[in-house]
Amino acid sequence: MPTLSKRVQDTFASPFRKFLPLARATKKRGIEVIHLNIGQPDFAMPTDLLNNLWDDSKPNFVPYGVAEGEDELRKAWTAYYSKFNVDLRFKDLIVTTGASEAILFALLGIADAGDEIIVPEPFYANYNGFAQMAGVNIVSLFSSIEDGFPIPKIEDFERTIGPRTRGILLSNPNNPSGKVYDEDTLIALAALAKQYNLYLLVDEAYSEFVYEGFSFYSAMQLSGADDHVIVIDSISKRFNACGTRVGALISRNHQLLENITRYARLRLSPPMLGQAFSIKALQLPSEYHDRLRTDFSNRRSRLLERLDQMEDVLYHAPEGAFYLFVQLPIDDSDRFCAWLLTDFEYEGRTVMLAPGTGFYSTPGKGKDEVRIAYILDVDHLNNAMDCLEAALKVYPGLKKPVASVV
Amino acid sequence: MPTLSKRVQDTFASPFRKFLPLARATKKRGIEVIHLNIGQPDFAMPTDLLNNLWDDSKPNFVPYGVAEGEDELRKAWTAYYSKFNVDLRFKDLIVTTGASEAILFALLGIADAGDEIIVPEPFYANYNGFAQMAGVNIVSLFSSIEDGFPIPKIEDFERTIGPRTRGILLSNPNNPSGKVYDEDTLIALAALAKQYNLYLLVDEAYSEFVYEGFSFYSAMQLSGADDHVIVIDSISKRFNACGTRVGALISRNHQLLENITRYARLRLSPPMLGQAFSIKALQLPSEYHDRLRTDFSNRRSRLLERLDQMEDVLYHAPEGAFYLFVQLPIDDSDRFCAWLLTDFEYEGRTVMLAPGTGFYSTPGKGKDEVRIAYILDVDHLNNAMDCLEAALKVYPGLKKPVASVV
Repeated sequence: MPTLSKRVQDTFASPFRKFLPLARATKKRGIEVIHLNIGQPDFAMPTDLLNNLWDDSKPNFVPYGVAEGEDELRKAWTAYYSKFNVDLRFKDLIVTTGASEAILFALLGIADAGDEIIVPEPFYANYNGFAQMAGVNIVSLFSSIEDGFPIPKIEDFERTIGPRTRGILLSNPNNPSGKVYDEDTLIALAALAKQYNLYLLVDEAYSEFVYEGFSFYSAMQLSGADDHVIVIDSISKRFNACGTRVGALISRNHQLLENITRYARLRLSPPMLGQAFSIKALQLPSEYHDRLRTDFSNRRSRLLERLDQMEDVLYHAPEGAFYLFVQLPIDDSDRFCAWLLTDFEYEGRTVMLAPGTGFYSTPGKGKDEVRIAYILDVDHLNNAMDCLEAALKVYPGLKKPVASVV
Repeated sequence: MPTLSKRVQDTFASPFRKFLPLARATKKRGIEVIHLNIGQPDFAMPTDLLNNLWDDSKPNFVPYGVAEGEDELRKAWTAYYSKFNVDLRFKDLIVTTGASEAILFALLGIADAGDEIIVPEPFYANYNGFAQMAGVNIVSLFSSIEDGFPIPKIEDFERTIGPRTRGILLSNPNNPSGKVYDEDTLIALAALAKQYNLYLLVDEAYSEFVYEGFSFYSAMQLSGADDHVIVIDSISKRFNACGTRVGALISRNHQLLENITRYARLRLSPPMLGQAFSIKALQLPSEYHDRLRTDFSNRRSRLLERLDQMEDVLYHAPEGAFYLFVQLPIDDSDRFCAWLLTDFEYEGRTVMLAPGTGFYSTPGKGKDEVRIAYILDVDHLNNAMDCLEAALKVYPGLKKPVASVV
């Protein structure tokens, strides 16, 4: 048979999904799999958002839309940003097919093959894959779970800048660490980007989900760095509509957006049905997110309580988003996550988690870490934690306490 | 400001869309623009396909789907192929975000940066852009409008194969030439692909639209070349649902599909609302397409009648699809198409066309050709042809007949 490309064979395997074939086999054996591997919450959305999605005001077929996204959606989305004290204009935002496409378009638009972007580690695993697709090298800035995932110092960012560095990419709140960047850090990063003539790309998919004691500061609030700042946004997590595939690329650098629109024109338009939904969702009253935040906060509390009862488990309480990155007494998180699906059950159930290795580009990091998405109700979370607790007693690759090794 | 990547600045500008800003300005001046620039037909779809799209059988939110597409859609789509005498299995088809994504994934999966694919010319213009995104070089095989766009001879394909050739890409029926590949040609191309260990990629987005006297032969009907054949398909044109953004990548080479699924997993899932629509659409009775074919055939006849009445206009009657690629007595199709929008009107109207240059990769080709999409009803087509006829009398860049130059 003809050969495959080298790049497809080298392509990063998504830690959220690479074990799905195993999970399917587990379910076939009659075992319930509790999916905490992916950020897909179970909250119902206001039902009328999905009724009459393609109403009589629309044509009686589904045409291509505008490459940059429908005018009405761009208006609704930029208006929505006023809740973050951001004054956006229509032209500052182009609609993409999920944040995924926004990330790919941004990388292609700011960097050529062989160029570099700096990304604080751990980071959203699929950045690895999109960087590979674009031929861009990720230069990671490591921070450790033992230290509570501190945001790297500005001097550390600066030290990492090289002749091929094109930008700094981060997610705020951070997936998977749950860290939230404060205003001062973002201002300092914008100053650094200006000094070295770099882009500052901030993925704000989780900006609605910041817990008590912390506050969200959008990179679009930064002043004096309009040419440098790019924000990536998404309808998915914000409105529990991951499957609509609607995201956005936001910048006041219109020359950049106009150039990136060439890529948007190639794929003709973002999904029209998802856009019709998004226009309605972005006009929901802010109480909608107040309620979601309360629910997530309760789930988070319960999860932390359960983990506190387990031995040799280390975490940093999330400040935002809905993930917990946790260190476990295990030899290999890939092996552990697979084993949970292939060789383990507790009362007819098991739990699917995302192995930590995928969230680093530094080889060997994350081997004893997993990501838990607290996206299900407290009952499901409890069942999942029962599984985890039991698994950590019988998993064959458990790290022995140092004393017993001697 | 920070620089843009070289590649985004070099990115191919879509001939279907690059003049849209001009068209917007035209409309602002109160002039009606008849859009024959893009393959977006005006046929109503059965209305119940769009009602109750997200019914009670589904969760009360819109979750991520399966990266390879929803099981139900894959089943409906493979079953639909029986109408082309193709026996497909569930695993032979993965769902993509439009055919656009299928093309990009296929190129990334079979070719590394710097590799080549052979494409008969003229071809679907956006192949140029997707090849650029993937860093793959298009080696084109020219055929001329004067000769009626003959499909290149097998010897010509063979002569073009070099050490970096990874595949042959064609669309059948061809957009923009309207040529239909016959069974013998496809069998010969598959044999060539086997002999040189190449992929044969066939874009069959228009397979429902083949006119009297011609018949469609799907590359999935080819036997003995399962590892080599890749078909690209789309819901868009087939069901007048371009905006749903649902396409497919089809192959019996499962190793290839499994590898490409890594790209699919990165972007998580195809649009779920569009997939819900597609499941219903693929189960429409075949009378639906019989009627569409009749309507397109009538539009085609009227368009050809009108062109026959104009001087110095050359075309080859389309055998399939719904485009007419036509040679006009003009100096420069880009200039002409822009001029139609900026400096021309006839009875308060003008027509937007796609300049021919974008459908070639050979520089200088297509300069006196335009693509006309006959996707509107006969009244609109007549109005558009009134405009074209009038324009060809007053356009400042008209080619003078040789006699008058002397």
